[in-house]
Amino acid sequence: MKTYLDCLPCFVEQALRASRIATDDDKLIKQVLDDVGDMIKEIPMENTPAESGILIYGKIREITGVADPYREIKQQHIAEAKALYPELEKMVAESDDSLLTAIRLAIAGNVIDLGINKTFDIVADVKRILKQDFGIFDYEAFKTKLNAAENILYIGDNAGESVFDKILIRQLKRRVKYAVRSQPIINDATMEDALSSGLDEVAELIESGSIAPGTILNRCTPEFIRIYRNVDMVISKGQGNYEGLSDEKRSIFFMLKAKCPVIARHLGVKEGDIVLKGINL
Amino acid sequence: MKTYLDCLPCFVEQALRASRIATDDDKLIKQVLDDVGDMIKEIPMENTPAESGILIYGKIREITGVADPYREIKQQHIAEAKALYPELEKMVAESDDSLLTAIRLAIAGNVIDLGINKTFDIVADVKRILKQDFGIFDYEAFKTKLNAAENILYIGDNAGESVFDKILIRQLKRRVKYAVRSQPIINDATMEDALSSGLDEVAELIESGSIAPGTILNRCTPEFIRIYRNVDMVISKGQGNYEGLSDEKRSIFFMLKAKCPVIARHLGVKEGDIVLKGINL
Repeated sequence: MKTYLDCLPCFVEQALRASRIATDDDKLIKQVLDDVGDMIKEIPMENTPAESGILIYGKIREITGVADPYREIKQQHIAEAKALYPELEKMVAESDDSLLTAIRLAIAGNVIDLGINKTFDIVADVKRILKQDFGIFDYEAFKTKLNAAENILYIGDNAGESVFDKILIRQLKRRVKYAVRSQPIINDATMEDALSSGLDEVAELIESGSIAPGTILNRCTPEFIRIYRNVDMVISKGQGNYEGLSDEKRSIFFMLKAKCPVIARHLGVKEGDIVLKGINL
Repeated sequence: MKTYLDCLPCFVEQALRASRIATDDDKLIKQVLDDVGDMIKEIPMENTPAESGILIYGKIREITGVADPYREIKQQHIAEAKALYPELEKMVAESDDSLLTAIRLAIAGNVIDLGINKTFDIVADVKRILKQDFGIFDYEAFKTKLNAAENILYIGDNAGESVFDKILIRQLKRRVKYAVRSQPIINDATMEDALSSGLDEVAELIESGSIAPGTILNRCTPEFIRIYRNVDMVISKGQGNYEGLSDEKRSIFFMLKAKCPVIARHLGVKEGDIVLKGINL
């Protein structure tokens, strides 16, 4: 997915929000906005928005000197999600279709995204998403693919959401490799976050090599690309990974909540819709 | 009111929205965004946001070659508001407190603001605002001032809203001068708009000299400033006028709906609140 004109004001808004988390110094924040403003004309519109995230969040790091502004917030989200975990497991166990409930929960976890959402209420969102209609619902194809698969690459998105992924991975009942970013970027899950989410209990944890808030294959490690090409099934969580992988040639299942108008339009769904979309099936 | 950090991403978003109205050519729109991005570092934060509006909307004019992108939209809003007019008059006539109902309607008209609101529904908003509690409600002071006043300067805001102003001006029952911008800027009312709103039937129409989406006194005509200084009562509609006049020394009554977090915070109200605020009483 390319960068759309609507992404440009959003980049400036994200820069403001993230630099406020990194520092209280309005002069530094202003400097970030000045520099991100200058960057608008240099951002290649043919790149994915996630790729530009490297530049924008790199600028915040450079100016504020804070390498991982979301560190504490990520830990907090993981702790909150873990506190919910027994209840979520119970929801899955008591549901008529435990796989589908686990998918819904994994998507509900995707509301934990500080790059785009300013505020969210995990419990309220979980309850809503458990009942919400899907904008795209390729569930039959998902089950067919899953039944034929021995191994799965599950590309994670945000910290906290990672705990919700654990629920789904348990239901997949396959050998799963769970991929995380190789460097902190916004609140995306890193190896440290995956470990504190307890994902090592259900999957083999790997780094994708990505330092973007998404998966841009030509910026990933050869090892990750090899796994991606050879695995039976790929599950990709969230908008950032969709941005990087939406034009790929292999089969992928995307699970996300369409949190911005650009992604919603690209998917052909309404903003706020939940999506289970398979490509190249 | 000065410019806040939150105003900067909003400027870029407004530039996108307005340039889309001016042109379908994505290359021109991108050029506007590039240039507005560059402008961020040059925007004097001690200026009011409305003052920066001159630069931003000037840039759109320069690049797209469209002097008044909102012309048709303004005419449409005036026509829509005029179609509602008899019903609005009836609401005032049938209410227990006709002045207060007219004030509420004048504020309801303030939702017609394409600089900030993307979408709105006039009828739904009117109905809601007729029942909504005020965030600030200096109505007693307003009535006291009005009772002692012979002449009033009423500083208009948007086209369409101007029709709602007519309702209130009728209820004021005083000699009213209605001030408009001296050049098209966003969807703010100009002399042409005031005339097609029928405001000449209830007030003397004057131009403030302002080419900003607000009233910045040192950019107004000496004649407007003289009237402003000598009149018994000043009524100022909308955010843009508030931005320019909030630090003034003379008594002013502001009527507006707080449509952005920055203005809401400055006023000490919630976003979406309706406000009747008097200063220097």
